Amino acid sequence: MATFTVLGAGYMGTALAVVAARAGHAVRLWGTWLDDELVDPPLRGEPHPRLRLALPSEIRLFRSPEIGDALAGAEAVVCAVNSDGVIPVLERAVPHLAPDGPLLSVTKGFLPGADGRIRRISDLVSASLLEPAGLHRPWVHIGGPCKAMEVARKVPTAVVYAAADRREAERCAAWLQGPTYTISPTDDLAGAEACSAFKNAYATASGLCDGLQLRGHPEMYNTKAMLFSQAIAEITRMVVALGGRPETARGIAGVGDLHVTAAAGRNRTYGEHVGRGEPPDKVADRMRQSGELTEGYPALKTGWDLLQQMSGELSVADFPLLEALHRIVYQGADVADTLLRVKVRD
Amino acid sequence: MATFTVLGAGYMGTALAVVAARAGHAVRLWGTWLDDELVDPPLRGEPHPRLRLALPSEIRLFRSPEIGDALAGAEAVVCAVNSDGVIPVLERAVPHLAPDGPLLSVTKGFLPGADGRIRRISDLVSASLLEPAGLHRPWVHIGGPCKAMEVARKVPTAVVYAAADRREAERCAAWLQGPTYTISPTDDLAGAEACSAFKNAYATASGLCDGLQLRGHPEMYNTKAMLFSQAIAEITRMVVALGGRPETARGIAGVGDLHVTAAAGRNRTYGEHVGRGEPPDKVADRMRQSGELTEGYPALKTGWDLLQQMSGELSVADFPLLEALHRIVYQGADVADTLLRVKVRD
Repeated sequence: MATFTVLGAGYMGTALAVVAARAGHAVRLWGTWLDDELVDPPLRGEPHPRLRLALPSEIRLFRSPEIGDALAGAEAVVCAVNSDGVIPVLERAVPHLAPDGPLLSVTKGFLPGADGRIRRISDLVSASLLEPAGLHRPWVHIGGPCKAMEVARKVPTAVVYAAADRREAERCAAWLQGPTYTISPTDDLAGAEACSAFKNAYATASGLCDGLQLRGHPEMYNTKAMLFSQAIAEITRMVVALGGRPETARGIAGVGDLHVTAAAGRNRTYGEHVGRGEPPDKVADRMRQSGELTEGYPALKTGWDLLQQMSGELSVADFPLLEALHRIVYQGADVADTLLRVKVRD
Repeated sequence: MATFTVLGAGYMGTALAVVAARAGHAVRLWGTWLDDELVDPPLRGEPHPRLRLALPSEIRLFRSPEIGDALAGAEAVVCAVNSDGVIPVLERAVPHLAPDGPLLSVTKGFLPGADGRIRRISDLVSASLLEPAGLHRPWVHIGGPCKAMEVARKVPTAVVYAAADRREAERCAAWLQGPTYTISPTDDLAGAEACSAFKNAYATASGLCDGLQLRGHPEMYNTKAMLFSQAIAEITRMVVALGGRPETARGIAGVGDLHVTAAAGRNRTYGEHVGRGEPPDKVADRMRQSGELTEGYPALKTGWDLLQQMSGELSVADFPLLEALHRIVYQGADVADTLLRVKVRD
């Protein structure tokens, strides 16, 4: 049994707290300064407002100012905030972190470092926050098709735990594995992180097709399948260029996670609104204001910028779908004209 | 310009006739002895009853007894009947076939030969029908995500044309390629045929999940994504064992075609009924009687038999999803108990 502290009390943080409690660990769930409305109802014994479940009594809840208590002596720490929140949250967490034990993360995406260069989150956080504080916590990225609502309800789910040292991933897997939560440990941290970030960007394509249909285009299952396959091809290329392994993109971290994200989720919803003809920036603003904007919108920009940054190793011509999505979402290109003319290459 | 004869006036044969007419070829569409009700309305100038489209006037229609006229001098012949029909149809066609020119095929599946061993259709037909008649028509298998209704309506579609000699696939691609019909030629005939057959079997899994949800299980996008990814892993293994290339399974022939089939189609519908608790054989009987049963049901049996046949090269333990689906559909295993406990290995 280990002591787990989960940072972030949104959908996924809370679901992982439930998974850890189910596996018999002592679990602390800390809400950020934006999470009071998520933490307060369970503190009163009411269901979690997003997961709409009563939390197991083994989960102790902590409000934002209590971060020191939440982290004191915690062996396993789970970072479950979005890419905007990861630096501010970990800045506050670092002074309270014990030196050892894994740092698990469901945060997806790449972030620009101080020099403007885009880097993987594990890389950036380790270099800018953990190492300067003398912390050597190994990073364990959690990828794969995992909607929080479902994992909290014991719907069979398979995920990937990725760490540079595979034994760290195996240790976390042994802690959290359960009958409905299957964990595949891997040492392909770079590949798994890239898949998690890029699938959000590419999932937009499925929503764009749905939006076109809603404004009168015929059904386009053929096109969606073609774009899904193209997305996997482009994600695989990117994974390899970042030092990851192609099989990571072809397994549950890539194919699996893109599948769930393109079928259901807010990245798809974002695309649907844009496909219906609403201006992409307006949709983003509206979803941001209602707390519904997810990583796909920024991931398209970061992914595109990363592609430019890697222009020595990668050619834009090999990423026609990413280019089309970027043109639609950030340059006002017409959805049908652009998306339906993507030249796929099998 | 070439003369195209399409054998089979169902959904896909008629859609390919439309594609060929659109590309400027002389097209003849022949209906089998089961297709009178599909051919007669267009002969009277009415829409095709399944595609619900008026056919271009460039398409000449032929009823079953007119097979000789339909095939006279045809350079390109397209076999567009199901796996049950391919041998009887080609037996009647062979005496009328010119010796040269490609035989394109959308027929999916494997068939048992006279010795009971299961073989790829291209292999079996060439050895048992074409070669004995002194015909050396190269076989071009058409794979990839292609619903007939959509391709006939110019919805952007990408397909694979596969021939043992890549130049034959390229020749056909040059004939039929169009702005909304993108063809990738390949020489991986074995891989493409295996993908087309197995995706029908595996698409059942998605329907089973849908059926479970309809009888009260919670949403299971996580599970569907996990099973999709597992299906691709198993199809890839099978493709390689059959002498195909893994990238065929990972591209539009595998990932793309499984995507469209699992999202929409009668194999999914079949699974949905079974997932709701109806006996698998009863569902098959009912769908067969209404002409709605597709290849997934027999493909599960043939696929399973093929796996046994290849037990020297393949291990059943590497095909847990195929085994689960076979147990559910052919051995009466409980859907939830069996499908939701499949042990995936990433």
